[in-house]
Amino acid sequence: VNTAPERTDGPPDELVANVFKRACTSRAALEDVTGKWASLALMALGEGSHRFGELRRHVDGVSEKMLSQTLRALERDGMVTRTVVSTLPPRVDYALTGLGVQIATALRGMADVLEDAVPDIAEARERYDSEA
Amino acid sequence: VNTAPERTDGPPDELVANVFKRACTSRAALEDVTGKWASLALMALGEGSHRFGELRRHVDGVSEKMLSQTLRALERDGMVTRTVVSTLPPRVDYALTGLGVQIATALRGMADVLEDAVPDIAEARERYDSEA
Repeated sequence: VNTAPERTDGPPDELVANVFKRACTSRAALEDVTGKWASLALMALGEGSHRFGELRRHVDGVSEKMLSQTLRALERDGMVTRTVVSTLPPRVDYALTGLGVQIATALRGMADVLEDAVPDIAEARERYDSEA
Repeated sequence: VNTAPERTDGPPDELVANVFKRACTSRAALEDVTGKWASLALMALGEGSHRFGELRRHVDGVSEKMLSQTLRALERDGMVTRTVVSTLPPRVDYALTGLGVQIATALRGMADVLEDAVPDIAEARERYDSEA
């Protein structure tokens, strides 16, 4: 009789990161980077570092409060760095970390697909609404 | 004197799709696919077509109401198809369109990055919180 413990192919399930699982850090991080303003802020920073005001102009429609809340969450997750430059008045520059660059690149790829698909999306919506 | 109209390199700005612009269809579509449940539903469907109940089990924590609302929005945008199979009782299958596959692939790439980065994200959060 074989009494050896069952072979497993890796660590137990609960130790493997999985965005589908409610309690996983990666799921919370996914929600942070895909938030309404976070995805746009990351893509804007993907074009280069920006000051707060520049970012705000770039991300059409964001309020000062929402943008600073968004940037704080992204800084906390290690996606964005915040650098105070001691000019007069002091300047605050935001930039992506290595991890932030990877996420911004994936988001930008998705945005490119969506921008190219605008005619298809508009047509799909018209069809859906006319059938409703 | 040169009175010729200025040369432009393409269509006027307001006719170019741009996710940064509030009024652009691509911005609304970006919000649809990056929604809290939409990104997970798209990734789940990226693994193959699913029935409603299967999808619900896969996307840990989603309510029936939120999942059906999410799927309707994705169907309307032309990302997801809904097929009623006339078994007894009838079965409803959800699958990705070509556009949905492209979006799901980009989202999955991002999720892979986040899953691999869990230790870094956790460390960044601890550091941020200890400095606050």
